[in-house]
Amino acid sequence: MADGFGVRLQERIRALGPLCVGVDPSAALLTSWGRSDSVEGLEFFALAVLDAVVGTAAAIKPQVAFFERFGSEGYRVLERLLHEARDADVLVVADAKRGDFNVTNEGYAEAWLSERSPLRVDAVTASPYLGVSALEPLFRVAEENDRGVFVLVATSNDEGRALQMARTDEGERVEEMVFRHVAHLNQRVDGLGNFGVVLGATRDRPAFDMTKLGGPYLVPGVGAQGATPENVGRLFDRCPAGTVLVNVARSILNVGPERSALKDSAQRWRDDLSAALA
Amino acid sequence: MADGFGVRLQERIRALGPLCVGVDPSAALLTSWGRSDSVEGLEFFALAVLDAVVGTAAAIKPQVAFFERFGSEGYRVLERLLHEARDADVLVVADAKRGDFNVTNEGYAEAWLSERSPLRVDAVTASPYLGVSALEPLFRVAEENDRGVFVLVATSNDEGRALQMARTDEGERVEEMVFRHVAHLNQRVDGLGNFGVVLGATRDRPAFDMTKLGGPYLVPGVGAQGATPENVGRLFDRCPAGTVLVNVARSILNVGPERSALKDSAQRWRDDLSAALA
Repeated sequence: MADGFGVRLQERIRALGPLCVGVDPSAALLTSWGRSDSVEGLEFFALAVLDAVVGTAAAIKPQVAFFERFGSEGYRVLERLLHEARDADVLVVADAKRGDFNVTNEGYAEAWLSERSPLRVDAVTASPYLGVSALEPLFRVAEENDRGVFVLVATSNDEGRALQMARTDEGERVEEMVFRHVAHLNQRVDGLGNFGVVLGATRDRPAFDMTKLGGPYLVPGVGAQGATPENVGRLFDRCPAGTVLVNVARSILNVGPERSALKDSAQRWRDDLSAALA
Repeated sequence: MADGFGVRLQERIRALGPLCVGVDPSAALLTSWGRSDSVEGLEFFALAVLDAVVGTAAAIKPQVAFFERFGSEGYRVLERLLHEARDADVLVVADAKRGDFNVTNEGYAEAWLSERSPLRVDAVTASPYLGVSALEPLFRVAEENDRGVFVLVATSNDEGRALQMARTDEGERVEEMVFRHVAHLNQRVDGLGNFGVVLGATRDRPAFDMTKLGGPYLVPGVGAQGATPENVGRLFDRCPAGTVLVNVARSILNVGPERSALKDSAQRWRDDLSAALA
């Protein structure tokens, strides 16, 4: 991989559109697909979603929690999904929301971002409660391996607003402090940087200048959570082309296991999102 | 398990003392033990630490990152460690710092706190960046299964202070908002509640009333990170007996793989911490 994650993602979005499909094998979804809530059901679901969205989605975003609930066997399925996605040349963002500090973050970096790990992905999501700068091992290993990190800035759920809008003793909102730190990391490179942020589509435009990121946005909240492609279009209207990756999960997955129905649904969302961001 | 996690932990601390031993199989520690940085090295290390601290430590705290770096094979080793710990009747706190919202947290709850999961533990650590109330699925499943959750309030590293000390629009520090919410959860029960907080020993006494938690404290930062048993004694001097669980990892693990040396080191730390908290 000669290009970094940011550049590769931007190329992919320009070619295929901004859709990221969430791979969320919850117990409820497996049941609604007529599958057992088991490792076998999990594997069927994950591979079926991947198969249906190749060529339509710029990336997939497996939600690690739904694999972890089956322990090591669930992780074996996740590893198979990641392997198949690499073979199919689909970018993968692992939604793991990992975050610790020091040598523990080296462990997480090794798990998700090192070349030798069976869990290696193109990018991983990270949570900054222990400080953005504490995530340095993840940033460093990502940079070394042309991979990426999406740091949580403003999530799509209401419960997080009080914390994310709190003001530091310097008078800055937490969401802005995190954003500013990630933007600073991207200043070192030409082209789109490897460090992105998660910013939910369910919210109003933040007070900080969103065009200053220099990296990609990962956008949850569209579909089942209530935001529309038009909300996305308005929120990100000033961001450069190919820098916004919009996740849709339940609104696509709810159509059930039939391949053509899944593909049709993904293509409709992709087209609507492309139009809204044009 | 008729008793909840809080009650069981308090009984254990009263019987054995307040020591929690961190199971942190980092690459550096495996190497310093003369073992390969591999799944085999991981398994040897984890089981050796457990074996050496049975009867001395009230609990062990495996750091999940160091198992995850080996993918599903690492998780298989973690499952074996958890199985052996249950057989040896040692309480386990999984240091996973999980945190999301809604159905995703149901996935994490199922992974760490449900009866049928191979990863089930007595308690798991959780991160509140998406809001403490968003952790409700973890709290609910913990309560149903007499297990526990330790929510990050004030971590032991410097990088997290700006965020954790930020003030919400109601004028409350983030650390106090999280603390208050967890304390509220414990008000429903007699005896020590199942919901604890992580509060690092490296810091000064917070502005909120630490005696109001009604649940256990998990205390990192002692030993390699610089805090002493005396720091712990001062910080928690007003907390009820048996409510403070103090994690020590590197300062014990650095003695190497020899069983009696590990046991001696753990006993010294246990005795020093017991004296400081008496």
